[in-house]
Amino acid sequence: MKALEKIITHFRRFPGVGPKQAERFALYVIKTPGSQIEELVEALRAVKSSVAYCRECYNYAEGDTCSVCEDHSRDRSVICVVSQPQDVAAIEKAKTFNGVYHVLHGVISPMDGVNSTGLKLKELIERIHKADGAVAELIIATNPDTEGETTAIYLTRLLKDHVTGITRIAYGVPLGGDIDYMDEVTLGYALKGRTKV
Amino acid sequence: MKALEKIITHFRRFPGVGPKQAERFALYVIKTPGSQIEELVEALRAVKSSVAYCRECYNYAEGDTCSVCEDHSRDRSVICVVSQPQDVAAIEKAKTFNGVYHVLHGVISPMDGVNSTGLKLKELIERIHKADGAVAELIIATNPDTEGETTAIYLTRLLKDHVTGITRIAYGVPLGGDIDYMDEVTLGYALKGRTKV
Repeated sequence: MKALEKIITHFRRFPGVGPKQAERFALYVIKTPGSQIEELVEALRAVKSSVAYCRECYNYAEGDTCSVCEDHSRDRSVICVVSQPQDVAAIEKAKTFNGVYHVLHGVISPMDGVNSTGLKLKELIERIHKADGAVAELIIATNPDTEGETTAIYLTRLLKDHVTGITRIAYGVPLGGDIDYMDEVTLGYALKGRTKV
Repeated sequence: MKALEKIITHFRRFPGVGPKQAERFALYVIKTPGSQIEELVEALRAVKSSVAYCRECYNYAEGDTCSVCEDHSRDRSVICVVSQPQDVAAIEKAKTFNGVYHVLHGVISPMDGVNSTGLKLKELIERIHKADGAVAELIIATNPDTEGETTAIYLTRLLKDHVTGITRIAYGVPLGGDIDYMDEVTLGYALKGRTKV
């Protein structure tokens, strides 16, 4: 069964897919009408041919700029810095942010020997310079883990002479979370950052 | 992001894939080199064009007959009846069965209103007749659940005049299982079916 083995190998490369699920995917392909698989093929090719990086913020974009950067109602004086395009999608779903983004495409990870070279930092500085003082705030929205924090500290040092208002997203208890099960560092931040009701 | 949305919709149709994983798959497609996606496309098409049912046993086959039926060293006097092609693959991995298979492509499910019409039963009877007495044993290897049992009982009634030796796979405790956590019906069967050591 060469064709089956080949497609299973391909599916195994998909993120989070084990041997059993890859097999189920292959059987799904067998059972699905050929026309629908052709549509899948077209969709795959469309993604490869049309999706690239936004030349402004390095989010994924169909065309030169992404949908956020194309939207003229967005406030260009506030840039939210995230590590990956998925984060843009997640923050957009929250519908509370009306600024623009900058995707770093990675984080600094001293443990894995990853420094700042791969990140879109030069591009961020250039972008701030080009805006000529119009960027009032930079929100650092990297993950609250070791790499994200390291990146946030690095960014703050690097950019503090370029932008006056550098902020970090709030730490605290997530909605639906259980205080009983929350780690003490998060709880400490949640208490320190308490707001008047 | 029309292309991305489209591919996510396609991935959502894959068995066991939720919205989050479909999104991760889409981002995987974006990140993966175009040449590799083209290989995936070719593999998908190869499956659709070359994989069909074996005309003997209705297992998946590349070509007219499956690899089991093509193997002349297999004992054609023993037919193991399973409900789906995955079961053939699972039993083949056990490497203890040297007979051939018959895939029913489904089970009888009175609860879901599924009767025997969709199953490859007529084909099985025809196959037994064509063998002209050469089929000595029929092992019923449907799942040990309500539908599988119903199907096994139905098969036994239907075929008892056609084949003398109809058997059912053994019930018992699975290796690695915990007797403490085993249900009482399984334990009952495990005790009843005990063998001399």
